[in-house]
Amino acid sequence: MKKTLVVCSGGLDSVTLAHHIAHEQSLLALLTFDYGQRHRKEIGYAAACAKRLSVPHHVVDIAPIGQALTSSLTGDSDVPEGHYTAENMASTVVPNRNVIMLSIAFGLASSMGAEAVAIAVHGGDHFIYPDCRPDFIEAFARMQQLALAGVSDIALMAPFLHQSKADIARLGVTLQVPFEETWSCYQGDAVHCGRCGTCVERLEALHLAEARDTTPYADTQFWRQTVAEHAACI
Amino acid sequence: MKKTLVVCSGGLDSVTLAHHIAHEQSLLALLTFDYGQRHRKEIGYAAACAKRLSVPHHVVDIAPIGQALTSSLTGDSDVPEGHYTAENMASTVVPNRNVIMLSIAFGLASSMGAEAVAIAVHGGDHFIYPDCRPDFIEAFARMQQLALAGVSDIALMAPFLHQSKADIARLGVTLQVPFEETWSCYQGDAVHCGRCGTCVERLEALHLAEARDTTPYADTQFWRQTVAEHAACI
Repeated sequence: MKKTLVVCSGGLDSVTLAHHIAHEQSLLALLTFDYGQRHRKEIGYAAACAKRLSVPHHVVDIAPIGQALTSSLTGDSDVPEGHYTAENMASTVVPNRNVIMLSIAFGLASSMGAEAVAIAVHGGDHFIYPDCRPDFIEAFARMQQLALAGVSDIALMAPFLHQSKADIARLGVTLQVPFEETWSCYQGDAVHCGRCGTCVERLEALHLAEARDTTPYADTQFWRQTVAEHAACI
Repeated sequence: MKKTLVVCSGGLDSVTLAHHIAHEQSLLALLTFDYGQRHRKEIGYAAACAKRLSVPHHVVDIAPIGQALTSSLTGDSDVPEGHYTAENMASTVVPNRNVIMLSIAFGLASSMGAEAVAIAVHGGDHFIYPDCRPDFIEAFARMQQLALAGVSDIALMAPFLHQSKADIARLGVTLQVPFEETWSCYQGDAVHCGRCGTCVERLEALHLAEARDTTPYADTQFWRQTVAEHAACI
């Protein structure tokens, strides 16, 4: 088993990934990026996951980079907030964000002697995000092999690449992941809103996996209606 | 011609690259990374180059990232200095540095609508640095095409990839680059030391190019002896 650094946001997918790698006894550490996201609460859940699995937790603040990239354009040094949705904000704050984050993950992996970097991208992301597609993952891994030739030999692992979020939730059930100790909501309020895109995905996946989920939600019914409407459209 | 963002350290190679791209009328802006290098003076030369060529100059501070990556290892939050040579320091401060810097360059290029990122890697770097070799450059470009598919179409240009430093100096002569307004020395003293690895390379290249060079050097003879010894070894 390769000693593995897991990129963990504190969300359902990456916390399940951390548990999965720990179960295979190859978890070395967790890495979380702070990019000024509104749902900062998830960083605390990543820290809790590291503690639960008894591994170091590294947090790298990339908000200043995002600020430098965007303020250079607008002349405004403030990180945008307010009317931005968290998703828009992420892409606004740090263009090319996933590539930058993976590059830093490989830097940390190299400095700590890790043999692999694992990320939780899954099949449901392919359509929307080009940098979550199998051909990107393969190209990134090859680029890093060449960039670190003779320095480090670090694999890029994406074990959920061809799985659905419901598959991940099923694995989480098997591994007894405490889902209430993960954060998905983009709203960043006291409890999960139950209505935003990721809340709907989360609730559907946990339902399909027949998971026991004690997470409190502001709205526990909305997702059913959305999923039903979506199904009717197809 | 593609509107191009040039990664410019303020050294001879990248300043000549900036002049070359400006001469082709496709220079959009310069990007310099501040990674806490001892030879910080070069950042000022990059700024002067941007001013001379009338384009914006963006400086991105990646020292905190290097600090996060290394302090996570040593538990020491101070950036190493003192007995480190600048080269050692660069690789210590930010492992995987070139990949991280190029990733950020593509992020900035995407946010500003640039069509290309240009870097000044040249043939003399291939042997030492895996991330300056043609196969790496090609793999990085392909990875970015996939990562930004549908978002931005940004080329990676490395026009000096198969040239020597003397070839670059010859181009600089043609373009009337003010070589005294570039900084190569790793020592970061008041004037170029003339004895460190990059000073020796610089002096040899400018000599081979028959360049007029008014840069002051602390030692103007050492390089000849080094080059002669090197030639005798072959």
